[in-house]
Amino acid sequence: MDLKVINGIRSLSIDMINEAKSGNPGVCLSMAPTFYTLFVNHLNFNKEDGEWLNRDRFIVSAGHAAPLLYSTLFYSGYNITLEDIKNYGKKNSPLTGHPTLNKKIGIEATTGPLGEGFATSVGIAISEEYLKELLGRDLLNYYTYVFVSDGDLMEGITYEAASLAGSMHLGKLIVLYDSNKVLQDGKTDGVFDEDILKRFESCGWHTEVVTNSEDAISIDRAITKAKSVVDKPSIIEIKSIIGIGLPDSGTNKVHSGPLTDSDTELIKNKMNLSQVPFHVSKEAVTYFREKIDKRISPIYNEWVTRYNNVREKSEEKKKILDYLEDSTSKIALKNIQINFNPDLLEDIRITNKNLMDLIAKLSPLFIGGSADEVKETMAFISDGGLFKINSNTGKNISYGLRQMAMGAITNGLALSGLRPFASTLLAFSDYMKPSIRLSAMMNLPVTYIFTHDSIKIGSMGPAYQPVEQIGALRSIPNLTVFRPADVNELVGSWDYILNKKCPSALLLPKETKGLLKGSDVEKTYKGAYIIKEAKNRLTGIILATGNEVETALNISNELALIGLDTRVISVPCLEIFEKMDKEYISTLLPVGSKIIVLEASNDRAWNKFVYSEKYLLNLENYGISGTNKEILEKAEYDYDTLLEKIKKLLK
Amino acid sequence: MDLKVINGIRSLSIDMINEAKSGNPGVCLSMAPTFYTLFVNHLNFNKEDGEWLNRDRFIVSAGHAAPLLYSTLFYSGYNITLEDIKNYGKKNSPLTGHPTLNKKIGIEATTGPLGEGFATSVGIAISEEYLKELLGRDLLNYYTYVFVSDGDLMEGITYEAASLAGSMHLGKLIVLYDSNKVLQDGKTDGVFDEDILKRFESCGWHTEVVTNSEDAISIDRAITKAKSVVDKPSIIEIKSIIGIGLPDSGTNKVHSGPLTDSDTELIKNKMNLSQVPFHVSKEAVTYFREKIDKRISPIYNEWVTRYNNVREKSEEKKKILDYLEDSTSKIALKNIQINFNPDLLEDIRITNKNLMDLIAKLSPLFIGGSADEVKETMAFISDGGLFKINSNTGKNISYGLRQMAMGAITNGLALSGLRPFASTLLAFSDYMKPSIRLSAMMNLPVTYIFTHDSIKIGSMGPAYQPVEQIGALRSIPNLTVFRPADVNELVGSWDYILNKKCPSALLLPKETKGLLKGSDVEKTYKGAYIIKEAKNRLTGIILATGNEVETALNISNELALIGLDTRVISVPCLEIFEKMDKEYISTLLPVGSKIIVLEASNDRAWNKFVYSEKYLLNLENYGISGTNKEILEKAEYDYDTLLEKIKKLLK
Repeated sequence: MDLKVINGIRSLSIDMINEAKSGNPGVCLSMAPTFYTLFVNHLNFNKEDGEWLNRDRFIVSAGHAAPLLYSTLFYSGYNITLEDIKNYGKKNSPLTGHPTLNKKIGIEATTGPLGEGFATSVGIAISEEYLKELLGRDLLNYYTYVFVSDGDLMEGITYEAASLAGSMHLGKLIVLYDSNKVLQDGKTDGVFDEDILKRFESCGWHTEVVTNSEDAISIDRAITKAKSVVDKPSIIEIKSIIGIGLPDSGTNKVHSGPLTDSDTELIKNKMNLSQVPFHVSKEAVTYFREKIDKRISPIYNEWVTRYNNVREKSEEKKKILDYLEDSTSKIALKNIQINFNPDLLEDIRITNKNLMDLIAKLSPLFIGGSADEVKETMAFISDGGLFKINSNTGKNISYGLRQMAMGAITNGLALSGLRPFASTLLAFSDYMKPSIRLSAMMNLPVTYIFTHDSIKIGSMGPAYQPVEQIGALRSIPNLTVFRPADVNELVGSWDYILNKKCPSALLLPKETKGLLKGSDVEKTYKGAYIIKEAKNRLTGIILATGNEVETALNISNELALIGLDTRVISVPCLEIFEKMDKEYISTLLPVGSKIIVLEASNDRAWNKFVYSEKYLLNLENYGISGTNKEILEKAEYDYDTLLEKIKKLLK
Repeated sequence: MDLKVINGIRSLSIDMINEAKSGNPGVCLSMAPTFYTLFVNHLNFNKEDGEWLNRDRFIVSAGHAAPLLYSTLFYSGYNITLEDIKNYGKKNSPLTGHPTLNKKIGIEATTGPLGEGFATSVGIAISEEYLKELLGRDLLNYYTYVFVSDGDLMEGITYEAASLAGSMHLGKLIVLYDSNKVLQDGKTDGVFDEDILKRFESCGWHTEVVTNSEDAISIDRAITKAKSVVDKPSIIEIKSIIGIGLPDSGTNKVHSGPLTDSDTELIKNKMNLSQVPFHVSKEAVTYFREKIDKRISPIYNEWVTRYNNVREKSEEKKKILDYLEDSTSKIALKNIQINFNPDLLEDIRITNKNLMDLIAKLSPLFIGGSADEVKETMAFISDGGLFKINSNTGKNISYGLRQMAMGAITNGLALSGLRPFASTLLAFSDYMKPSIRLSAMMNLPVTYIFTHDSIKIGSMGPAYQPVEQIGALRSIPNLTVFRPADVNELVGSWDYILNKKCPSALLLPKETKGLLKGSDVEKTYKGAYIIKEAKNRLTGIILATGNEVETALNISNELALIGLDTRVISVPCLEIFEKMDKEYISTLLPVGSKIIVLEASNDRAWNKFVYSEKYLLNLENYGISGTNKEILEKAEYDYDTLLEKIKKLLK
C-alpha cells in the first residue's frame, strides 16, 4: 500500500504537468518515495492548523518539484481540492507554477530561484533555536527540512548559508538532496564534479548517503539518523535516476516539459495505475492520512495542552505568542517618548543604533545582523549579545561576508514570526536583490538597513559608491524605501515600518545629522511634506530626500537673500507619497509651479514631477575615488554648483 | 636586503594609509612577504609593457590590500611616481582607494567587492586555456595568480567560481590566501569555522599550506609546487597574523583605518626604517628591480622573438593577435549579407542563435555560455563545441547554475581580449548585477543575453517574471540595453554592440517573431526611429520597445480605422536615443504631440517623455502564475485593454 500511495503521488504529478503543459516530471517521479517517507514517518504537521507554531517546516528549495509537493500535500489532506490540482499553474489555483507562500496548505515559502529556499531554511532553523530560548523547549522544538537539487547546491547563496549553518551548529536543519547529476542543459560531468558531501563536511555538517532513491527504508533510516545528530546540520544525499521509469530516464530530456502520451501511458502501466487523468485511489488516500494522523495526533494534542498551560502561566510568553500568531500585532515605537536634544549632532548611524536598542526593548522578536559591516553600518542591538552556538539568546547575527545568504536568511526569520533587520552598505544591496525581491513578493516584515547611501563616502571608490541602487530598490514592487533627512524622519520611518509591517529598506548616509528645522515625525507617514515654506511669492519648489534635504534648506535660505522665495519639500518615502490622495499631492505641488528635485542618485522616477529633466538635479555616472570634496565637484554635485544650477533654473 | 625591500613596501603602504586616512594596514603588513616573493621569483611581467600578451596575471581580489599592491608595483618599477603614491585615494592619482583596472601599471582588474576578483580570475584562466589552443603554447602560456582574504572565500561568488574551476581542471590558476581568521567585525570563530582547504579539495583543487606568512622561503616553495600541479587549480593557505608587528596585531582593530602616530613610530622602529613619511631606499629599489629584470628579461626577449616569428608566418594568428592587442579592432557584422526570408516567422531566440553562429564565424574570439539555461535562452554557438577539460577549443561554456560567477568570469574573458557573451533569464539578471556593474565600470565588451523579458512567460510564476529588471539594467551607468522588436532590430543591435564594443545587454522575448513592416537595421543605431508614420493628421505618438512594438503597430492600424492617426516609434535602445542630437529627437517627438509609451516593465525613465504618468502604459506589480492570457489580463496588459486605454488617451 505504501508503494500505491507513492505511485499515486507520482501519477498526480504527471497529470498536473501534462495538463499545464509545463513543469518538471523528472524530479517528481524519482523523489516521490522521499516525500512520502518524510510525510508518513517524520514531518510533524497539522493539516487543519497550517500555522501550528511547533510544526516541522518543509521547504522545497528545488521549486520545480512543485507538482510533487502539491500531490503530496493533497494526499496528506490539506485543504487542496482536486480542482486546484487540475488547475495547477493557472490563475484560479493556489498551486502556482513554482511554490507560493501559503502556510494554510503547507507551503512554507515562495521558492523557485534555486538556492533561495535553502538559505531561507537556515533562517528558519536559526529562528527555532532563538524562539526555543524565549518560549521553552516544551513549546518550541521543531525540525526544518529542506528539499534541494543539484542546481540548488551549485548556487553561491547555498554555499554561503551552508557555511554559516555549519559554523552555527544548527542541528535541527536537515537537507534532503536529490542527487541525480543531471542539469537542465545536460549532465553535471565537467561542470559540477565535486565531492559534495565532503564539501558539506568541511563546513561542519553531518552527512548521510542513500544509494537508491527507491529504497524508502534507507531514506527513513537516514532521516532518523540525521534527527539524532543534534550538534550539526545534516545533509542526506539520495542518489536517484531522474525521471525513473521513463524511457529517457537519467537524462536531461526528462528534466522539464510534459510527457508524451505514450510515455504517460507506459509509466502508468508500469505503476499499475489507472490511465484516467487525475484518478485518485480513495483507499490510498485513506491509508496515507490515517497513518499520518495516528502518528501526529497525540503529538499535536499534547503540545496544545502544554501551550494552553504556558499561555495561562506566563504573561511574558503569552505576549510573545500573541505576536507570533497574530500577523496584525505591532511594535509601537510612536508611543515611546523619544526626546532628542535640540542641539543633537551625531552620526545618524549612531542615532539609528540607539533607536534600534529601543525597538529591541519593546520586542524580543527584533533580531538581525550584518554581512560583516557592523563597523560601517552600526546597525547593532547594544545589549543584544551575539547569536552563536551555546548563546542562542543573542539578537545580533554575524553573517560574515555573505550578503546574499543574509537576505534569504532574513526572510526565513520573518517567516518564523520574528521581526528581522539586515544591514550592509547600499552599494552591496545589489548582492541581496534576489532575496529582497522575495521579501517583497512574500510581503514579509523585514527591514534592510543600507548605509553609505551616496557617492559622498570618501576614497572607497566607485565600486562602493551607490548611484543606481536607490532607484533599483524603489523599483521593487511592494518594497517601501525610506531615506530620512534627519532624526525626526528616522523615527517616523521606523514607526511606519513597524506599524505597517511592510517589507522595507532604510537608507542612511555616513553623515552627522541633528534635527532639521521643520522636520516632523508624523508627517513622515505621508511620504513627503513641506519642511520649509516660501515666505511670500513662491518662485519654485525644491523636492529633496535624505542627505540632500539639508542642502536644499541651505540653498533655499541663500536664495531668499537674493529674493528667490522657495518651498522645500522633504520626501522621506516616495512610494508612500505617490499613494497619497490627489488633494494632498496638489497642495504640496500646485499645478504650474516650478519643481526642482535634488537627490544623489540616478533614479528617473522623479521625471514624473519635473517639467523637463534639467530640473532633476541628480547623478548620472559613477563616482570617483577621492576626498568628498573632489567626488562632489567631479560629479558637479557640490553645494556651490547646485546653488548656481538652481538659481539659473528659477530665474 | 630582501627583508629591507619587504619592509620598505610595508612602510610605504602604512604611509599611504596614514596620509589618506583610509585603507587597511593589517593586510599590508602581514602580506608584504607574499607579494614580494611572488614578484621577485615568479610573476612574469614587463613594467614597460603592461599589456604584454603572455604576462602572468595577478589579481588582487581582496581590494583592501590596494596600498600593498601599489607599493609593490612602485618598487617593481611600473610607471608610478612617488606623487601618485602620496596622493593614494585622491582624484589626481591612478592609485584609487580600491584597485581600478589599469594594465599599464599592473592593475589587471577593478576589484573591491569581495569575491569578484576571484571569479574574474577564473575567467582569465579559462581564457589562457582557450587562447593557448588558438595561438599555440609558445605564445600563450601564463599563470593567473589571485590574492584573496577570508572575506573573499566566504562570498558565494567565490565558491561558484571555485567549483567550476575545479571541474574544469584549470591548472594554471593559483590562489594566494591570506588566512588571518579576522574579519572587519571580529574573529571568524563561530562565523566561518570551515576546513577551507578540505572544501577546495572537495572541489578538485590542489592545496598547500604555509604556516607562517613571514617565511618567504616556504611561500616560494609552495608557489613553485602549485605551478608544477598542472591538472588542478591550486590554493595556498598562508597563515598570518593580521597587522603583524603592531600592538593590536591579530585583532580586527588593525583591520582598517590609519595607524596612530605612536604605532607608526613603533612599527618603523621595529623594521629599522626611516620615520620620514614616504621615504624610499634607493638601494632597496635598485636591488628589487635588478633581481626581477635579471629573471624576466630573457623570458620576455625570447617571447618577443617567437611572437615576431608567428606574426610573420601565420596570417590567421596575426589577425587574432591584432584583435587581442588593438582595442579598436572590431567584428563587423554589418558587412555580412544577411538575407531574411520576408515570410520568416520563428522564435526570435532561434534567430538570435543563428546570428551568433555567424558572429562566431567572423571571430574566433566570440565565446560564452549560460548558467544552465541554454534550453531556455538558446544562446549557443552551433559548431562551437563545449569548453571542457581536454577540449579547450570549445566556445560554449556550461556554467551550471552559477549566474553570479558567470558574470564575473565573463568579465575575466573580456579582460583577456576575448569577446564574450553570457545568457540566462532576465529575472535572474538580478544575481549578476554586481558583476554587470563591474563590466560597465571597466568598460568591457561583454554582452549579456537575457531572454524571457516580460511577465508573458506562462505558468513559471512571478519569481521568474521580470518587471523591474529592464529599468534596473538601464540604470547601470555605461551599460547599453537593447530590446529589439524584430529580427532587423536584432541584427542592428548586435552590429552596434560589436562595433562599439560597449558593455551591453540584449533582451529578448520568448516569442515568435518575423520582420515587422517598417523595421530597419541601420535605424537601430539611432536608438529609436519611426517604424510607422501617421498618414494624415498626427493625433498621437506611440513609443514602444521589443515585444510591445508589434502590439503598438496593431493598435495603430486599428485606431486608423476609427480615424485616429498615429505614429509608432520603435525604441530598440533608449540610452542611444537619449544621446542623439536634439534635432533628431524633436523630429521624432515634435513639441506638443501626445506621447504614449508602451513597455512591459516598470521603468519610470519613460516619465521623461510623457505628459503625465497615465500616458505611460507599463507594469506596476509582479505577474501571476497562469496562462499568458490570464497573466496579461490580470496585469491589464492584454491587447484589448491596451487598445481601449490608448483610444481614451487619444480622444
